[in-house]
Amino acid sequence: MTRGRFITLEGGEGAGKSTQIRRLAARLQASGLKVLLTREPGGSPGAEEIRSLLVTGEPGRWTPMTEALLVTAARADHVARTVIPALERGDWVISDRFYDSTIAYQGYAHGLGAEKMEDLQRLALGDLAPDLTLILDLPVDVGLARAGYREGQVKGGEDRFERMPKSFHEALADGFRQIAETHKDRCALIDAAGDADAVEAAIWAVAQARLGLG
Amino acid sequence: MTRGRFITLEGGEGAGKSTQIRRLAARLQASGLKVLLTREPGGSPGAEEIRSLLVTGEPGRWTPMTEALLVTAARADHVARTVIPALERGDWVISDRFYDSTIAYQGYAHGLGAEKMEDLQRLALGDLAPDLTLILDLPVDVGLARAGYREGQVKGGEDRFERMPKSFHEALADGFRQIAETHKDRCALIDAAGDADAVEAAIWAVAQARLGLG
Repeated sequence: MTRGRFITLEGGEGAGKSTQIRRLAARLQASGLKVLLTREPGGSPGAEEIRSLLVTGEPGRWTPMTEALLVTAARADHVARTVIPALERGDWVISDRFYDSTIAYQGYAHGLGAEKMEDLQRLALGDLAPDLTLILDLPVDVGLARAGYREGQVKGGEDRFERMPKSFHEALADGFRQIAETHKDRCALIDAAGDADAVEAAIWAVAQARLGLG
Repeated sequence: MTRGRFITLEGGEGAGKSTQIRRLAARLQASGLKVLLTREPGGSPGAEEIRSLLVTGEPGRWTPMTEALLVTAARADHVARTVIPALERGDWVISDRFYDSTIAYQGYAHGLGAEKMEDLQRLALGDLAPDLTLILDLPVDVGLARAGYREGQVKGGEDRFERMPKSFHEALADGFRQIAETHKDRCALIDAAGDADAVEAAIWAVAQARLGLG
């Protein structure tokens, strides 16, 4: 049994990750691959329970460090219960966010430090790493407008991160660009400003080149 | 304002931590000190929410690593919201369990490794450390009998750890002894096999000597 490949999509609010994940999955399935779609925080029953602590409530509910530990706890469960079993069955796994979100959100945007957050991921996950990470990059104003964001607005429900100030989202976008630069072998920065068809084509070109797809 | 002192009590099931914490607090209060009693996992509203994920359900509900990250997340919240504000007010803080429980439970008894768990604590908490850690030591059979434990028995409620097999509790007790040996300056191993008065006297003698109490 050949082990499956692990692809992660990253990016800030409104970058179009959900749409692009569905399209990438369809292309991989059309190539005859079995594909599992998953997401973080969440992706396993335990991790979804932890998710509910993370995405609801006031923006200041958790300190950045508590948040980093909670998302990493959810990730450890997601990896053990969902990602690794699927890869070992030979399935391909596409995750909507993975550990680069912790590096970007808590490491860069909240200022805990990228290196410290990378240490935490290694401690929690050993040497598990995605085979390819697609980072959807977009000017912050465009992303937040697409996500229907207005500063200070309360939408209710799972909007704790969206309610962070715009400066937070700027630091986040910069953080993702830094990650793409630091981990060039694993990551590809995708210009997500175009329409969904153009982004899909860009992603597929990268996936074909990096993962040896026909 | 003089910063308060931070005392932690550790030990396996049935060691009598709750009784001894109340007695130690009474002695400190009689010395004119303001004392805050707290506990882990928990000790702050956010940490208590995380606690409920940890102490209920099947023993195998979480992998040891997920568990270590969840208890450390709860600890980061507990420290930021409860412990540090109290110490800065000048209060003395006594916590029923603290980070040595993670070293003993997940590091030693679950086999993740004490050093890895110590790295995790440093990453999460920086250089915060208790001024004194009292480790209540008891033969495992005695402790489990006192806690009303029978292997395989389901008591319902917050008994997820008690339901671990006896071999787990043996490894836990050995782990706590190792911690006391490794961190002699901070820790004192207290023989908890005697009656509550004898244990109280032993604890008070150590507290007086180590913390310069009258």
